[in-house]
Amino acid sequence: MADRIIINEVGPRDGIQSQDGELSLEQRRLFIQALLDAGIRHLEMGSFVSPRAVPQMAGTDDLARSLEVPADVHLSALVPNTKGYELAREAGVKTVAVVASATDTMNQKNIRMSLDQTMRVCLEIIERGSREGVRVQAYLAVAYECPFEGSTNPAVVIDLAAQLLESGATELVVADTIGAANPAQVKQLMGTLAASHPVERLACHFHDTRALGLANVYAAIEQGIRRFDASVGGLGGCPFAPGAKGNVATEDVVMLCEQMGFETGVDMPALLEVVDLIGSMLGRTQGGRAHYWLSKNAA
Amino acid sequence: MADRIIINEVGPRDGIQSQDGELSLEQRRLFIQALLDAGIRHLEMGSFVSPRAVPQMAGTDDLARSLEVPADVHLSALVPNTKGYELAREAGVKTVAVVASATDTMNQKNIRMSLDQTMRVCLEIIERGSREGVRVQAYLAVAYECPFEGSTNPAVVIDLAAQLLESGATELVVADTIGAANPAQVKQLMGTLAASHPVERLACHFHDTRALGLANVYAAIEQGIRRFDASVGGLGGCPFAPGAKGNVATEDVVMLCEQMGFETGVDMPALLEVVDLIGSMLGRTQGGRAHYWLSKNAA
Repeated sequence: MADRIIINEVGPRDGIQSQDGELSLEQRRLFIQALLDAGIRHLEMGSFVSPRAVPQMAGTDDLARSLEVPADVHLSALVPNTKGYELAREAGVKTVAVVASATDTMNQKNIRMSLDQTMRVCLEIIERGSREGVRVQAYLAVAYECPFEGSTNPAVVIDLAAQLLESGATELVVADTIGAANPAQVKQLMGTLAASHPVERLACHFHDTRALGLANVYAAIEQGIRRFDASVGGLGGCPFAPGAKGNVATEDVVMLCEQMGFETGVDMPALLEVVDLIGSMLGRTQGGRAHYWLSKNAA
Repeated sequence: MADRIIINEVGPRDGIQSQDGELSLEQRRLFIQALLDAGIRHLEMGSFVSPRAVPQMAGTDDLARSLEVPADVHLSALVPNTKGYELAREAGVKTVAVVASATDTMNQKNIRMSLDQTMRVCLEIIERGSREGVRVQAYLAVAYECPFEGSTNPAVVIDLAAQLLESGATELVVADTIGAANPAQVKQLMGTLAASHPVERLACHFHDTRALGLANVYAAIEQGIRRFDASVGGLGGCPFAPGAKGNVATEDVVMLCEQMGFETGVDMPALLEVVDLIGSMLGRTQGGRAHYWLSKNAA
């Protein structure tokens, strides 16, 4: 049997939140349902953040309650603090994502807290999650480069990763928030982390800002990483990180993995229809490069 | 000192020949000069093919005679047969490129010869080159996948590579003509070749059709390969191979290599000006992703 790569679809949260304009809850629900129908089994469905700060994510609690999914589907939601955690838990969310940026300035810009304060919040949520049966994915943002502080010190990332994993985070997601990593750095950092932690608890989150997204995914695969965030159509970015462009497109990552002989469980034609669907909802064509190539060849 | 990666710029031949419309000889000369001014030191300046079949390359002999280049610049020209070889030699070209496709059908479509016939021509030119002091780069086209025959048998590629190198080709260029390779295949094939031949005589030629171009470059770098074809602005394709899109963009490859700590000798801002120059000559905006990203950030 082919080795499996888990794609965690983040379009409905990371993708949508950075777009101009808002989708209705019904559109968000249809978008998520279409992704699940295409074989996606891990999906970030929204975030429990202030609707004033991120209006695109308003109503995530209602959305979470309205989604009925099969047992093999893993839905997660981003929570910025314990209040968000509590709201998520009340809405029946079984996996939450917490984010610590690896630099002080990025934490200040993102959530107006220092790195130490952010880590305290993350560790508290991880501890509560362990106690209350909620899985916690811990993100380390700007793990390679910070738009404000420049290159991130890998030693800091390695130390923070250990703290988060040892305190009980079910998964550590190393995020190249602004798409500045190169595959040599990915090899180095993910290789180091994989030497100290079980690879099934490690994941990567890449942006394709400099066209290095797939090269970075490949570099991480070579280090044994089998879990990747991706956003259908390459939707995404970060409203608080200048220079961050789209996430690596789900269809591109699926193409890369499947062509390399891995199994993703994703149905590519159905996935490409979701690219069209979200493009029509947003009024803008979306799409990674696989989309372009496959449509041309199908024609 | 940083490890060096040699970029062989193929825009003035592989890039231009697939474009609608023709550049004047003076435009081609200016294009080449601008590339050399940007630090390019290896460059395919044209081809000695029938001007009826490929009108974009007419006058390459005059162009070759008119170019005065410093001693550290290596200009090459593509020759399809011994007649082309002789014309190139008479025009003072010091390095010629010959192409054998790794499948019968592709050779038939490209130059109306079988693989055996093509190999005989290539080996004859290599032998003459050795005798007459002309360097011969041997290309193996459709080395991963053929648009007509599907997946290429790696054993065939490895055998043809050995014949070409052992007969005296100064360099073997493994070409993913239609941009269908994935990094796992590149690792496998280039790793095998690098185990049997000196890496300084091996090079790779990738197309970015499926967004895997840079991932493939990285995979080859990891196998010790230090010579890459690239086409400024991602110009290129192959008129006889359906599905072939642009070559991997020089600015993207330079960005990848330099960010990984390699030296390319290329001046990025000057190179990006060449992208604009050739775009204005062709009347169409060109550019890899580095171009987009760097211009946005410079603004």
